[in-house]
Amino acid sequence: MPRYRLTVAYDGTQYYGWQRQPDHLGIQQVLEEALAPFVTHCKTPPPPSPDGEPPILVVGSGRTDAGVHARHQIAHFDLDRDIRPLSIQRALNATLPPDIRILDAAVAPPDFHAQFSAHCKEYRYSIWNAEVMPPDKRLYAAHVRNPLRLDAVRDAAQRFVGEHDFAAFTVNPHRIVRTTVRTIFSLEVVASPDTPLVEFRVRGNGFLYKMVRSIAGFLISVGLGRAKPSAVDEILASCIRTARVESAPPQGLTLWEVWYPTDGEGPTTEP
Amino acid sequence: MPRYRLTVAYDGTQYYGWQRQPDHLGIQQVLEEALAPFVTHCKTPPPPSPDGEPPILVVGSGRTDAGVHARHQIAHFDLDRDIRPLSIQRALNATLPPDIRILDAAVAPPDFHAQFSAHCKEYRYSIWNAEVMPPDKRLYAAHVRNPLRLDAVRDAAQRFVGEHDFAAFTVNPHRIVRTTVRTIFSLEVVASPDTPLVEFRVRGNGFLYKMVRSIAGFLISVGLGRAKPSAVDEILASCIRTARVESAPPQGLTLWEVWYPTDGEGPTTEP
Repeated sequence: MPRYRLTVAYDGTQYYGWQRQPDHLGIQQVLEEALAPFVTHCKTPPPPSPDGEPPILVVGSGRTDAGVHARHQIAHFDLDRDIRPLSIQRALNATLPPDIRILDAAVAPPDFHAQFSAHCKEYRYSIWNAEVMPPDKRLYAAHVRNPLRLDAVRDAAQRFVGEHDFAAFTVNPHRIVRTTVRTIFSLEVVASPDTPLVEFRVRGNGFLYKMVRSIAGFLISVGLGRAKPSAVDEILASCIRTARVESAPPQGLTLWEVWYPTDGEGPTTEP
Repeated sequence: MPRYRLTVAYDGTQYYGWQRQPDHLGIQQVLEEALAPFVTHCKTPPPPSPDGEPPILVVGSGRTDAGVHARHQIAHFDLDRDIRPLSIQRALNATLPPDIRILDAAVAPPDFHAQFSAHCKEYRYSIWNAEVMPPDKRLYAAHVRNPLRLDAVRDAAQRFVGEHDFAAFTVNPHRIVRTTVRTIFSLEVVASPDTPLVEFRVRGNGFLYKMVRSIAGFLISVGLGRAKPSAVDEILASCIRTARVESAPPQGLTLWEVWYPTDGEGPTTEP
């Protein structure tokens, strides 16, 4: 029963997020359906089991919301027979829609788990900070017209770094998770005079539902002068989500990288 | 009767090219309909005239094909009253779909003509030269899996530079234009070891129907070893389009810049 690891890129524009859902199309479902032919030796996919479980379960490193993209999402699944990873990659890319691509397939250790083994993730949030949003950026960045005060944004960003209870920067926390304490390792604000693109690059040991978009939304508020950097400390301490924290729109967010202990000591690519 | 000049960016994915057509939506038509409210003082656009002419004619620097993009397309139109260019730009951006954006609006001299005054244009053709096409590049580059031999491509590219009869690199030439002689000022092949992106940047005094895509298609053939660089000279001399010349797909092509004598001596941005 070999376990396989996939590196998946997707344009989330047309999907209701990563997760399989009853009424909407998630990227997980598209992958599970594309993998179904590998369960049997015939080329027609088997019907789903009576309880609605797919014939192959694809486990991702985490959920991404509707409209959110991924550059390097990691997923695993098990097969009942050995197939060359390159054959799996090519067969999947031949049947998947062009907005979902398998960048790599590999055999993983039997105890590898895309979600539970992950020890660091990076998300990037992109903002086009200018009067007009270029058409080719519109699906991959949020549009903020007024100039952001980057020194204030950087001050606020540093206050998120470290171990905190992020209950005030998520939505419905206690319905989903045991604890809302997470550690942010770094939160960089990257900008250049050559382009109106502003990027928030955040690395942490895990992220709650809508946490990165909530942080990005608040950093935008700070950059527009609607909130002070020091408000980050107050809101974190309150542990209560209020209207002061708005979620930034999904198209600006990309799951950039996921790291596992088996890959080495930690993040290997420069931020 | 002031004349206005627009700088327009568009993602051509959803359109049947620039030109107004009877049965399909062109970018020209979308702009003309968005400008219609400026003809009268009421906010409801007037009906089109009985002969089907739009109330405002928008003239572009040239046509782009279905699926082709523009970074800086230039267009002009006349109004029967003075309106601040910034008001026109903002009103258009408020009503146009997000895949068409007005980057600039200005009053132009009465003899300015977006097509006939242009003396240089640059198109860029983008190729993603790797096994897998990333989802966020799929609408803006052609996909070529096998490695291109760039030295051969560069040799071939230089043979297009200069004044030539490009009849063999267009489609149905004599139905549309008087002469198929054009001058290419430069044709650069830009690549970097950091990315699989290969770009052809071509500047000329004008381009025939499908000319850039035909040149790009032939350069790809040379890069894949299917044709020799010296074949460019033979095919140009033949003045006959044959199956040896294939048009590269539209999504790789972007109208990058248009230059006018009134803007200065020539191209001012570095290629």
